[in-house]
Amino acid sequence: MSQGRYVVIMAGGKGERFWPQSRLRKPKHLLPIVGETPMLTQTVERLEDLVPPENVLVITNAEQREAVLEGCPMLPAENVIAEPVGRDTAAAVGLATVLVADRDPEATFAMLPADHVIKDSKGFQSVLSAAFAAAGQEDALVTVGIQAAYPATGYGYIHRGDVAGEAEGRKVYTVKAFREKPDQETATRYVESGEYYWNAGMFAWRVPVISREFEQHTPGLWEALGAITDGLKQDQPLDKLLAEHYPNLEKISIDYAVMEKASTVRVLESDFDWDDVGEWPAVERHYDKDEAGNVTRGRIVIQDGSGNIVVNDGKHTTALIGVEDLIVVQTPDATLVCPKDRAQEIKALVRKLGEDPEFSHLL
Amino acid sequence: MSQGRYVVIMAGGKGERFWPQSRLRKPKHLLPIVGETPMLTQTVERLEDLVPPENVLVITNAEQREAVLEGCPMLPAENVIAEPVGRDTAAAVGLATVLVADRDPEATFAMLPADHVIKDSKGFQSVLSAAFAAAGQEDALVTVGIQAAYPATGYGYIHRGDVAGEAEGRKVYTVKAFREKPDQETATRYVESGEYYWNAGMFAWRVPVISREFEQHTPGLWEALGAITDGLKQDQPLDKLLAEHYPNLEKISIDYAVMEKASTVRVLESDFDWDDVGEWPAVERHYDKDEAGNVTRGRIVIQDGSGNIVVNDGKHTTALIGVEDLIVVQTPDATLVCPKDRAQEIKALVRKLGEDPEFSHLL
Repeated sequence: MSQGRYVVIMAGGKGERFWPQSRLRKPKHLLPIVGETPMLTQTVERLEDLVPPENVLVITNAEQREAVLEGCPMLPAENVIAEPVGRDTAAAVGLATVLVADRDPEATFAMLPADHVIKDSKGFQSVLSAAFAAAGQEDALVTVGIQAAYPATGYGYIHRGDVAGEAEGRKVYTVKAFREKPDQETATRYVESGEYYWNAGMFAWRVPVISREFEQHTPGLWEALGAITDGLKQDQPLDKLLAEHYPNLEKISIDYAVMEKASTVRVLESDFDWDDVGEWPAVERHYDKDEAGNVTRGRIVIQDGSGNIVVNDGKHTTALIGVEDLIVVQTPDATLVCPKDRAQEIKALVRKLGEDPEFSHLL
Repeated sequence: MSQGRYVVIMAGGKGERFWPQSRLRKPKHLLPIVGETPMLTQTVERLEDLVPPENVLVITNAEQREAVLEGCPMLPAENVIAEPVGRDTAAAVGLATVLVADRDPEATFAMLPADHVIKDSKGFQSVLSAAFAAAGQEDALVTVGIQAAYPATGYGYIHRGDVAGEAEGRKVYTVKAFREKPDQETATRYVESGEYYWNAGMFAWRVPVISREFEQHTPGLWEALGAITDGLKQDQPLDKLLAEHYPNLEKISIDYAVMEKASTVRVLESDFDWDDVGEWPAVERHYDKDEAGNVTRGRIVIQDGSGNIVVNDGKHTTALIGVEDLIVVQTPDATLVCPKDRAQEIKALVRKLGEDPEFSHLL
């Protein structure tokens, strides 16, 4: 393990897409959507022997903090920080920078999403180690480029440029552009060109470098964050500082605020498996199917049905007769039935529930 | 109210067709499948002011007796009799005959199913009163003929013959034949002919008449039942007598054992509404639909779905997105999802569950 290396995990989310299992207080990263432990727990465990637990921070929110602590007993409690309000990703990365800087102003740190599936932990660690190294080589903002396994329309892409160097045996490229989720045709073109990576939202950089970029490209946000830095130096409690200053921060994404404007952005090639498992149908990719193509988790009986995803708590029984390609998810207080190809409509349902006092307890 | 008139309600069933709401210990007659109280309770209440509660008997089984007592607080507990084992309908009618005879050997009694929907209670009472009268006129076995509202393939039919008389202003016909559930073409022919009634399994007869028919057409069964009659005369407890003698009774249906062989069988015309509500899709006929044709009972949210039947306990929330013509029934320990046009397969599912120790608690 190298000293001076930190990881900050972003663990928020509204718990809409995996409803009714996911809730506002229990979004995907707090659920074992794939595997037996919460996705966040798996993310923290994936760092074992690479970054010491005291150097792993989680930024979450007030509603989820208790459950995050419960899911991450290996982390010091003070490493789990709750945003008092959501202020988009630039503020969260800025806060991460402030918090890491307070511990080690010369540190290199990585930002990681909390709820993605990566089975090849060794491959992941090897890439993350290289990302730390690359971040030190030319004061770059380093992103991890995921090998695009198929022309996905649900992911953003990174268009790489020329080879800029090498880190621990892996190629580092310049970045031509970050691309939003493409349509199918564009996605196919991306993948065929061999010049595009999936953007997994994984970054690595040195504290002085990302600080300078913030200062240069979003001086207002950086100055506001400075109040938190100053307060920490005076040993004021973080909760109080966040409550006072965080709500004033500008709401803007890190991509727009910094990444697209920074001078030295690099993408590191990688080779581990990766899946953000963005909605129920993605779960299929990670479980064995029965002979009729059903994926089941819990106590399920299917009589002449095929292609279904059926999930319950293992105490309740869910029985299906003669249905195809449905998502059926049972929880103690709510059940969802929805065709797989309409999973993107779950979000709208949850929002509708939230507007109705009779159902708002289900958020 | 006329003295000497009894009603015996047959309240058994395996609770398969309305699973997961119906169970072995709680079949349809113990559930408010249509209405707010159990179907049996409605059946008993429908007799109010026509037959006094002390003259209303219920034949059920050991598993269901407690719940029957609970659902029928208006009945004396000794009027709720549990068959120790099921021995088909001839044995049950024979037992009814023995029990009524023990109270009044000259009584007229009706046999009624426990779990049918009849909304026109007044019309029903008028017909039942006429059936009692008809049973006394020519020592007949009287069945009630239901006006066939459409060419149903799920019901048996009664083919009427000539007018044999009149009872309380209603025509009484001879019976040409009892017909099993027909195919669609045959059902259409039946209904178009105007000579066929639906067979609701409602009978009325005098104790001496049905006794004589039993003696003549199934002497073995009748002799075996005689042991119970004798025991009752000696004031032996009914439970003990049933435990000793009932399992020995021949298993045969009342239609086959008596009705098809008896000399004087009559069918009384009727005009009340009637529905045996034999499976989940039948529930639709009794509830208002929303604009998309969904029938819901409980706490249900449907986003862009149509023609569904969705039922839960009102505490749980069942949410549907974009599905059509499904039955979705939620109970505290089991949920069913099944297309409406495959409801007849629920029975097979329940039997399969019964064979698996992991699921047999759900029967």
